[in-house]
Amino acid sequence: NFSQEQVPNDKHFKNLQRAANEAVLPNSSFPTGDISAERSRATFPPEEICTLLNGGRENLRRKAELLKIARQLPCGDKQQRPYLTREEEYVEALRGAFSIWEKVGRGEFTQDDGLILRNLFEMPSGLELHIGMWMPTLRAMATPEQQQRWLEPSTRFEIIGTYAQTELGHGSFLRGLETTATYDKQTRSFVIHSPTPTSTKWWPGGLGKTATHAVVMARLFLDGKDLGPHPFVVQLRSLENHLPLPGITVGDMGPKLGYNGVDNGFLRFDRVRVGRDCLLARFSSVTPAGEYIPPPKGNEKFSYATLVFIRTTLVRDAGLALSKAATIAVRYSAVRRQSAPEAGGQEFQVLDYGNQYANLLPLLATAYAFRFMGKSLLELYYKFEKDRESGDFSLLPELHQLSAGLKAVSTWDAASGIERCRYACGGNGFLQSSGLPRLLTYYLQNVTWDGENSVMALQTARHLVKSLKAVKEGKPVGGSTAYLGSFLTGDSPMTCEVEGAAGWSDPAALLAALEYRATLRIATAADLLEREEAAQGSKDAAWNCCAAELVAAARAHCEAVVVGNFFRTLQALSKGAELSSQSLRVLTKLAALQSIDIIRQDLGDFLIRGYMSSRQADAARLQWRELLKELRPEAVALVDSFGFDDYELHDSAIGRQDGDVYNALLERAAASPLNKSQEGPAYKSVLAKHISSSAPNLKSKL
Amino acid sequence: NFSQEQVPNDKHFKNLQRAANEAVLPNSSFPTGDISAERSRATFPPEEICTLLNGGRENLRRKAELLKIARQLPCGDKQQRPYLTREEEYVEALRGAFSIWEKVGRGEFTQDDGLILRNLFEMPSGLELHIGMWMPTLRAMATPEQQQRWLEPSTRFEIIGTYAQTELGHGSFLRGLETTATYDKQTRSFVIHSPTPTSTKWWPGGLGKTATHAVVMARLFLDGKDLGPHPFVVQLRSLENHLPLPGITVGDMGPKLGYNGVDNGFLRFDRVRVGRDCLLARFSSVTPAGEYIPPPKGNEKFSYATLVFIRTTLVRDAGLALSKAATIAVRYSAVRRQSAPEAGGQEFQVLDYGNQYANLLPLLATAYAFRFMGKSLLELYYKFEKDRESGDFSLLPELHQLSAGLKAVSTWDAASGIERCRYACGGNGFLQSSGLPRLLTYYLQNVTWDGENSVMALQTARHLVKSLKAVKEGKPVGGSTAYLGSFLTGDSPMTCEVEGAAGWSDPAALLAALEYRATLRIATAADLLEREEAAQGSKDAAWNCCAAELVAAARAHCEAVVVGNFFRTLQALSKGAELSSQSLRVLTKLAALQSIDIIRQDLGDFLIRGYMSSRQADAARLQWRELLKELRPEAVALVDSFGFDDYELHDSAIGRQDGDVYNALLERAAASPLNKSQEGPAYKSVLAKHISSSAPNLKSKL
Ligand SMILES: Cc1cc2nc3c(=O)[nH]c(=O)nc-3n(C[C@H](O)[C@H](O)[C@H](O)COP(=O)(O)OP(=O)(O)OC[C@H]3O[C@@H](n4cnc5c(N)ncnc54)[C@H](O)[C@@H]3O)c2cc1C
Ligand SMILES: Cc1cc2nc3c(=O)[nH]c(=O)nc-3n(C[C@H](O)[C@H](O)[C@H](O)COP(=O)(O)OP(=O)(O)OC[C@H]3O[C@@H](n4cnc5c(N)ncnc54)[C@H](O)[C@@H]3O)c2cc1C
Repeated sequence: NFSQEQVPNDKHFKNLQRAANEAVLPNSSFPTGDISAERSRATFPPEEICTLLNGGRENLRRKAELLKIARQLPCGDKQQRPYLTREEEYVEALRGAFSIWEKVGRGEFTQDDGLILRNLFEMPSGLELHIGMWMPTLRAMATPEQQQRWLEPSTRFEIIGTYAQTELGHGSFLRGLETTATYDKQTRSFVIHSPTPTSTKWWPGGLGKTATHAVVMARLFLDGKDLGPHPFVVQLRSLENHLPLPGITVGDMGPKLGYNGVDNGFLRFDRVRVGRDCLLARFSSVTPAGEYIPPPKGNEKFSYATLVFIRTTLVRDAGLALSKAATIAVRYSAVRRQSAPEAGGQEFQVLDYGNQYANLLPLLATAYAFRFMGKSLLELYYKFEKDRESGDFSLLPELHQLSAGLKAVSTWDAASGIERCRYACGGNGFLQSSGLPRLLTYYLQNVTWDGENSVMALQTARHLVKSLKAVKEGKPVGGSTAYLGSFLTGDSPMTCEVEGAAGWSDPAALLAALEYRATLRIATAADLLEREEAAQGSKDAAWNCCAAELVAAARAHCEAVVVGNFFRTLQALSKGAELSSQSLRVLTKLAALQSIDIIRQDLGDFLIRGYMSSRQADAARLQWRELLKELRPEAVALVDSFGFDDYELHDSAIGRQDGDVYNALLERAAASPLNKSQEGPAYKSVLAKHISSSAPNLKSKL
Repeated sequence: NFSQEQVPNDKHFKNLQRAANEAVLPNSSFPTGDISAERSRATFPPEEICTLLNGGRENLRRKAELLKIARQLPCGDKQQRPYLTREEEYVEALRGAFSIWEKVGRGEFTQDDGLILRNLFEMPSGLELHIGMWMPTLRAMATPEQQQRWLEPSTRFEIIGTYAQTELGHGSFLRGLETTATYDKQTRSFVIHSPTPTSTKWWPGGLGKTATHAVVMARLFLDGKDLGPHPFVVQLRSLENHLPLPGITVGDMGPKLGYNGVDNGFLRFDRVRVGRDCLLARFSSVTPAGEYIPPPKGNEKFSYATLVFIRTTLVRDAGLALSKAATIAVRYSAVRRQSAPEAGGQEFQVLDYGNQYANLLPLLATAYAFRFMGKSLLELYYKFEKDRESGDFSLLPELHQLSAGLKAVSTWDAASGIERCRYACGGNGFLQSSGLPRLLTYYLQNVTWDGENSVMALQTARHLVKSLKAVKEGKPVGGSTAYLGSFLTGDSPMTCEVEGAAGWSDPAALLAALEYRATLRIATAADLLEREEAAQGSKDAAWNCCAAELVAAARAHCEAVVVGNFFRTLQALSKGAELSSQSLRVLTKLAALQSIDIIRQDLGDFLIRGYMSSRQADAARLQWRELLKELRPEAVALVDSFGFDDYELHDSAIGRQDGDVYNALLERAAASPLNKSQEGPAYKSVLAKHISSSAPNLKSKL
């Protein structure tokens, strides 16, 4: 047992030990004491923010109950997970997922509880797509009859589905899909076929070894005419013995950087015949005679809406993932002590080094910003859903451009932010027992999945360039790009009006600066685009060669949106009773830090056309330093406010709430599977034939 | 077999297939054709640069021979490695390493061949520290007698050593170590002891289950007096049965983000007695009577030099790792096609998107820059070693500040650069078969190991602040900080003199700008430091709260050094015959791109004190775009010039030299262990009890 001080076992050593300890102990650290001391330094009560972020006391209570259950699930012990082989991880993840959904099926839990439990359990499995895409797609795109046929047994897991769109040769570009579904009038069936290797379906979660069915996106051919990608339900495996059906070649893609509980798969069709009723026909369909019934106008918008919804949840999840990493890194930095001012003196908490807090506090601010942004975006989405019932789709363009760009910016920044939190933990951030490697490697696919980030940012940029054009043509532009109008019409000043460092704590001034920068970048990219169009004579070629500038414009826009939302959220809260003025004051500082940190990093944008003077820029940097200093003592309380149980931090040894990191690290190390035997697994087979005591002189002359 | 087009197996389908293929094939991609076309676009012969970077034709020939051998080693098949369990990886890595070193031992290979083979094999094992630290430390710090005792059997692997410095509570701060070595006059022995849990040795490679011995850094106590950390050789395990010796608790730390073939370990001493002759005594020693013989003046410098050497190799390795990632990403981006301008038209190579080449080309430039920097730094180191023989240590301070800062900047940028290369490969960069996950996760520890990066950057910053002070006091300052003098005395102009975009292709102008920026950041940080010292009354507290600005100053300095070295290298080469003018022209563009990319990202530094006008800044951005366009067609040839065999790219399916990425991806997927059975490993145990065909309507009405 490493967690106890060893006691002298021999009188002879008594003196030696005392001498050693006397000299050495002043260096030793007392992490649990450090973390309590940090908590008492904060100027606000973390419970308030925690209740707010977690959606109320009742939710917190329910989470606590579900946490107990999650720990008891098969493979619920997160400490064991890094030891699993790929195969075990795949099997155990499924076992865990089933035991959640069985409980839901038996009515022990509500559907919502099931989803919370799945998030707490955090072990993605072959069922992710069944829950997250297969069933939602059936709900959205299938006729009532089709829903009865497939959705019904899906809720009982009698069949398991996935969503197969991406192909080996075709990812971001949906219209490039090669899989064909050719209607055969004689047999009134579709023939699903993969004509080339690049048409192999590639990536769908659960496709490898789990799914029995899939929604397959394939090009519909009627009488030789290509009608573009349409969704078909195809059964892939026998329900009797789980073997692939004739004409179907399907399997797992092999191990990935993370997310290895999921069997992402490949799938090739050799002329697989499915009934006419396998085309998901809520919107478009094919008559027995082979005539195409096109979708009504709203259809595209409908399938769009599902994507938009998922992207919206990814913004929220970016905030969650970054909050977790920040919790680990801030707590560890508060108890980690390194370097003493004088020999034998107490060492500094590493959170007191400027490099450390200047790294971590803005990431903490970003985590809050994304969480508030995710919440607002979801609210906007639900408003859209309500409007839609009365046929009003007017919110969709705004939702689309916001969710695409924000998905990109938030997942990029969360991914790099988690990694920076990991760096801040030194060597121990490299250990699986810190929780950070798993947090990182299971997060990273979000920059690619559900819309590759650069491609997403470019979609937003297209909207921004159009909005700018509209403004220039005198058309009204509302929503999140309204600022373009203000700047171009001169309503917003093109020079910054801030005076002194304190001036940089004014939310209006900060937001104005970020909106100015977005305007500048959008205008610069649009100018460039126009010039390239003229020079190259091809709109596509011009667009492609301006893509870096367009992505930068989309980022600036999204950052302004995020900061604007952060301040607006706080303003709204200041009118309610949920937060005390102490909590509000600290969060307002955090929002200001978030803004100034962006300004500081891209100062060139503010200086190049004279928006700021160098005096104002210097003042911004001063205020940045000031905010960092003011927020430093609040750091631990600000991560406590997220309200994560240690279990939600992948049971991180270094992110523990109680600060007792060293004992935890030792305990976790001792549990390494290599320690099963004292001599280790390589001794007999590899080491023994080399190691030898035969060398002369080897023995000490003690 | 997925790699062949399937042929129609039924007459009935013939027409369907033709129809489908006709409509679809124009979309299909021909990666091997694309990569050949790219090669023929380049304006220079890659062989020249390849020969240069690989140190001559003979080295290349030797590498090709050793590659064949590496593939044949135990576990030489890199494609299998992602399937290994932690335990297997540990054992197989050792097996592979031994088979290399046995061959060296038998004289089949030279020591140098052994090192090359180890780099090609790329499977770090429990022997890394034996080779990389244990033996070098004995060579540097042991007396001839001690060398005979331990070094001799070490070369035959009869004993295996490691280097145990870091402790659970003590990483960056060496003087904080708690392990004690207390001299006992009566028995003329040292008692090595770990008084607290935080004094547990923590991290040494090979310590867990492999090493029989360790150099242990422990505080030497003589008569109760603390003489600070000294190196002791301690035997840890019996050479008969590999069991830990009495008083020793030792084991593996558990799995990490990567590097899992290595058994990094923990170690605790319970009053372990070792002979007086176990203190490495080349420099300092203890007499039998317990008197301390202090080291001569040069000692510190000597042990320093080893660290400096390792950091120097890490700069070179950063260049190597980033070259590999860039090779994979550039080749894949050249053959990956995504998005067609019109329906059914051929899709664009993704390398033709501005976001993609603006991302990848500067990373490629950075890879070259680090490789040249690593080479120059190693040359400087060898010059120092030679000087040292005649007692001249004058190069050491410069080497120290350069290697610390450059280690930090190069490993930071290589780590984030590898990750950006991975992002650029979309979903496939997440697959282990792309090679990128392994490249990344095995690289990442370099930001922490051998000097945590922020701490390293701060060491360089300390030197920079001192140099600035010296300049202000009118003292001469040479070496890489000489520019400080030029700016402060007015020899270098404080405003930029570049005219037009083309002016930004002048190496002198680019270097001047980067040196200006370094000067500005150093001066800003030093000012701040002075003000904080006055305000806080504590030098330490002032330093700590300026650490972010000091790290930023060190970065700017290092970037100027790297760029300066890049241009100087090319200038020197222009005088020789190794490179043709075509190759030189392309490399010069690359160096310019590297410089302008830094300027572009931190434009604020150049505008805030009026070094550049906005017109000059605009011109720099224009030139950046121009260089990107000019270098785009050279990209594949520039990565070919690194001369990596596919094997050196972790057998990446998407970075293949021949461009045949899709067939490779399919082959690798098919080999996934989950595909061993058709129904998969979860069917019987988990899935079967849910899946059922009993639902009504499930059958198609086909
Ligand atoms: C973990 C994971 C799970 C997945 N699950 C599923 C699933 O369940 N079902 C499914 O169907 N798919 C799934 N996918 C696939 C996913 O949808 C694709 O990876 C994603 O659409 C991106 O496509 P790609 O990987 O082909 O990247 P590509 O589109 O090939 O992108 C490669 C590079 O090219 C650039 N690029 C591409 N097009 C453009 C453009 N027009 N302009 C500028 N730059 C461009 C990108 O920025 C990127 O840098 C999954 C992927 C992952 C990683
Ligand atoms: C893969 C791997 C292999 C290793 N192998 C060995 C080995 O063989 N032998 C061995 O002895 N050790 C080994 N180490 C340990 C390694 O040397 C330490 O991890 C390293 O020295 C950093 O110390 P730390 O991890 O304690 O980080 P810390 O020093 O605790 O750093 C944590 C954070 O605090 C900050 N910080 C710390 N001090 C300061 C300061 N003075 N000023 C400003 N910021 C500061 C850092 O920037 C960092 O962000 C290994 C580590 C790894 C990851």
